[in-house]
Amino acid sequence: MKIYYAPNTRAVRIVWLFNELGLPYELETFQLGERKMRAPEYLAVHPLGRVPALADDDGTCVFESGAIVQYVLSKYADGRLQPAPSSADFGPYLQWLHYAEGMIMPPVNTIVVETILLAPEKRNQGNVDRAVKLLGRMLEAVETRLEGREFLAGAFSGADIMTGHATIVAAKLGADITDKPNVSAYIQRLNARPALAAAWQAGT
Amino acid sequence: MKIYYAPNTRAVRIVWLFNELGLPYELETFQLGERKMRAPEYLAVHPLGRVPALADDDGTCVFESGAIVQYVLSKYADGRLQPAPSSADFGPYLQWLHYAEGMIMPPVNTIVVETILLAPEKRNQGNVDRAVKLLGRMLEAVETRLEGREFLAGAFSGADIMTGHATIVAAKLGADITDKPNVSAYIQRLNARPALAAAWQAGT
Repeated sequence: MKIYYAPNTRAVRIVWLFNELGLPYELETFQLGERKMRAPEYLAVHPLGRVPALADDDGTCVFESGAIVQYVLSKYADGRLQPAPSSADFGPYLQWLHYAEGMIMPPVNTIVVETILLAPEKRNQGNVDRAVKLLGRMLEAVETRLEGREFLAGAFSGADIMTGHATIVAAKLGADITDKPNVSAYIQRLNARPALAAAWQAGT
Repeated sequence: MKIYYAPNTRAVRIVWLFNELGLPYELETFQLGERKMRAPEYLAVHPLGRVPALADDDGTCVFESGAIVQYVLSKYADGRLQPAPSSADFGPYLQWLHYAEGMIMPPVNTIVVETILLAPEKRNQGNVDRAVKLLGRMLEAVETRLEGREFLAGAFSGADIMTGHATIVAAKLGADITDKPNVSAYIQRLNARPALAAAWQAGT
């Protein structure tokens, strides 16, 4: 399978997933903003020219990191990294898998737009302040969930890849975690996994 | 099962889902902003006091609309409204299910914040203009996908509940669909479904 990847993007989640599962993959690496991401060949894979996307060997292309995680786990993981529907962890697993894009990433996107992507004269500090405050509340829920738990839904799972990565990115971008010891320890625990360490370095 | 609901929110998706499946449910209806949504009883269900949330009869609570859709379809739908993992529609199904929150809802949220929630003196028209433009591009991908298709991934599915609802909300909030005939017809097709019509009216 081929992973369309760029460093420091949600594509790290997919390389992390493949590394955890020990599944082989081919990497097509872009640099963010590179013209090749808007070329017709890539727009046929992802109509908005974003990463990650996955091309399966049978020709199926999937984008949206949460979709790719669920696709790979459903088809190629033999039950690993996700609880069975009969498990009490199944509902929380789905919830925390979706939490990444539903809750954490919108304010993360705002911070990226307002501090990196927009021209300085168009930036608005009020937007950044609101996003940082909101992120604090989003991570507070993660802090509470991790009380007495190593991972978000039973054993390490796809939910940790999605919301774990989102949490790491949020902390990097300025969300205050000094009052969140469970989140701090969780980030250390995830970064200590060789599969994630390798994913941060992929494509270099 | 109990659905925590408020009119004109993502909770419509869940009532729509239950109506499509013919599953019975109890409704707990809030009005957005109501103090009861921040009461300790409800914060125990959803730590951020948002809707929708689902309380299953076995005590499992799940929030995030995409998670609830997948939870209910996995446990209580006997294979309805989602393609099997062996189907060629399975990858696209997951992709379009996640597309709602991954792509469409972030700019929708920006528009809601900037035109409804923020005090007038704090609003920023530049944010609204950027969000409307971005939404147009997000819906362009839906337009292309619907070329020659009635639904996003084979037969009507959970992906249509998620991204269909997001598309309807985006159009209501000012995304231009006059140049998107497939999206326009899709919205009409979805709104003609009795299960959605009843969901818009739930709790009234």
